[in-house]
Amino acid sequence: MSGSREQADSSRPVTISYIAASAGVSVPTVSKVLNGRSGVAAGTRARVEALIDEYGYRKSSPTGRGAVVDLVFDEPADMWGVEIIRGVQRVARRHGVGLVLSEFGPRGSAVRYWIDDALDRRPACVVTVAQLSAEERDRLRAQGIPFVVFDPTGELPDDVPFVGATNWSGGRAATRHLTGLGHRRIGVLTGPDDLLFCRARLDGHRSALEDAGLVADPALVARGPLTRDGGHAAARALLSLPEPPTALFACNDLQALGAYRAAREAGLRVPEDLSVVGFDDLPVGDLVDPPLTTVRQPLAEMAAAAAELALALGRGERPPQLGVELATTLTVRRSTAPPRA
Amino acid sequence: MSGSREQADSSRPVTISYIAASAGVSVPTVSKVLNGRSGVAAGTRARVEALIDEYGYRKSSPTGRGAVVDLVFDEPADMWGVEIIRGVQRVARRHGVGLVLSEFGPRGSAVRYWIDDALDRRPACVVTVAQLSAEERDRLRAQGIPFVVFDPTGELPDDVPFVGATNWSGGRAATRHLTGLGHRRIGVLTGPDDLLFCRARLDGHRSALEDAGLVADPALVARGPLTRDGGHAAARALLSLPEPPTALFACNDLQALGAYRAAREAGLRVPEDLSVVGFDDLPVGDLVDPPLTTVRQPLAEMAAAAAELALALGRGERPPQLGVELATTLTVRRSTAPPRA
Repeated sequence: MSGSREQADSSRPVTISYIAASAGVSVPTVSKVLNGRSGVAAGTRARVEALIDEYGYRKSSPTGRGAVVDLVFDEPADMWGVEIIRGVQRVARRHGVGLVLSEFGPRGSAVRYWIDDALDRRPACVVTVAQLSAEERDRLRAQGIPFVVFDPTGELPDDVPFVGATNWSGGRAATRHLTGLGHRRIGVLTGPDDLLFCRARLDGHRSALEDAGLVADPALVARGPLTRDGGHAAARALLSLPEPPTALFACNDLQALGAYRAAREAGLRVPEDLSVVGFDDLPVGDLVDPPLTTVRQPLAEMAAAAAELALALGRGERPPQLGVELATTLTVRRSTAPPRA
Repeated sequence: MSGSREQADSSRPVTISYIAASAGVSVPTVSKVLNGRSGVAAGTRARVEALIDEYGYRKSSPTGRGAVVDLVFDEPADMWGVEIIRGVQRVARRHGVGLVLSEFGPRGSAVRYWIDDALDRRPACVVTVAQLSAEERDRLRAQGIPFVVFDPTGELPDDVPFVGATNWSGGRAATRHLTGLGHRRIGVLTGPDDLLFCRARLDGHRSALEDAGLVADPALVARGPLTRDGGHAAARALLSLPEPPTALFACNDLQALGAYRAAREAGLRVPEDLSVVGFDDLPVGDLVDPPLTTVRQPLAEMAAAAAELALALGRGERPPQLGVELATTLTVRRSTAPPRA
């Protein structure tokens, strides 16, 4: 499964000053990076972070030995889960706390077990990808266990901490890229309207159309499950229109891969005959042919921020901001091109 | 991120007899499925398993409330990790134990932390994808914490419990499929020789060549990292031979995707001009074009078996067999075809 691994060369914990010396920066600079504070140049921050990870440096843990953060999924084992786990893992390691992985399971059948078990384990905090009910949130609160909602899919009360992504801006960036290439008829593949992130991405798309002086055509929006098959069916519907779109914006990467398949079936080449943009930037996007242009959602960074926030709440800190959206960025690969003249 | 979730409709734990009634089978049959015993028809087993998962049934836990299984990776966040987590998660849920995710981290820098933390947490047992050193194994043993090695990459003493896959048979199946299609010049992309599973897969390939009356040509074996780029470079080398192979067997799916790229660059179509077989059956194999023919390694099932074995050891049981390899199977998709006449 994996390659060989070097043995750790020392049994002494690594200190901040050792990291500072290795990076050629001051101790306060390392401290700023460790605590996620501003005032450090991006290059320096990256270098220090790499050393922190390389040396396995950990803050002394005010949460105590044996403390854990509980990461809760509906079903963890999907392509997004990997990135989320990676982010929480990184923070847990730095803080010297364990990472417990929990799941509600399909159709939520195990909910009643998870919350009891979670209370038994007394985690320092909870990061939840699964959407907790108001009652579940109340139970955690009553037990004094802080939690942060990862990428909420619906409306939350103002007092619920969360970390999300700038979905609206991401949708705007995707379509601005396409209009910039000269596309005028742009189709959208999206998911159910009760998922707020789908609506935000779609509204961002419309906003970019407006900027380009284009009118959003409802006939160019197709809805379906956020899967490859869902994207395939939705794309097929749009490509069979009398005047089909020359580009498609898919609300997630799996739908975009469904669009690839629909294009192939219709005898269209990507990107020569049809441009496709996805959303998420899952690793698979770089493995397919052509590599997928997509809006990168910084899942690992979002998860790390959620874990940091949850641990801060667990230490009794009152962060100035309970909810935050991290910026999406456009990753341009090979699936987009100007429309045929 | 995820869709809506039904609320659990009851706060009472689900009983075996309830599951038996729902499935229309006897209580002893459900019990057999729960304990992984034979004597249950495959269809019945699948139906009962689905109900067990749906209702969130759990055995009463002899390991006690708050017990955890510790799953240790070098770096969990890769495409294999998802499947492994899924398998351990399933078993943990059924047994009502928590799942702690640990990692050594890049280059093993955090080893000394993990083992201390693991001992602090007193897990009921450990499933390790990371390869433990003899000293690390001794420390766990001294503390009475049982462990099972997932898919060992090197030789282990006979007393170390493990769950692996039938790598040799898998390599045989891949090449038998290609010789059956009529290929006579079959190239191999493989990884470093210190990884035993690579050597087993390569030997299985040679064994299938022998069955077909073919002689293994060392010039048709190319080695490289087990990544897409590694497979790309290795495939490019083989395709530039004076007499290039008509088919490639890649020791993992990522290398196979590298072969796709090398084929495209050489102006070859898969499968018309070049057949490609991978190994692993990662989800990505079904998303690429053409969908990848590959040897399925049952990662989730292997992980579940490892967790069951570790928990059994934790309960003080002495399983008749400490090491086991689960069978691989060939998944034929669209990347293989007879060679050009």
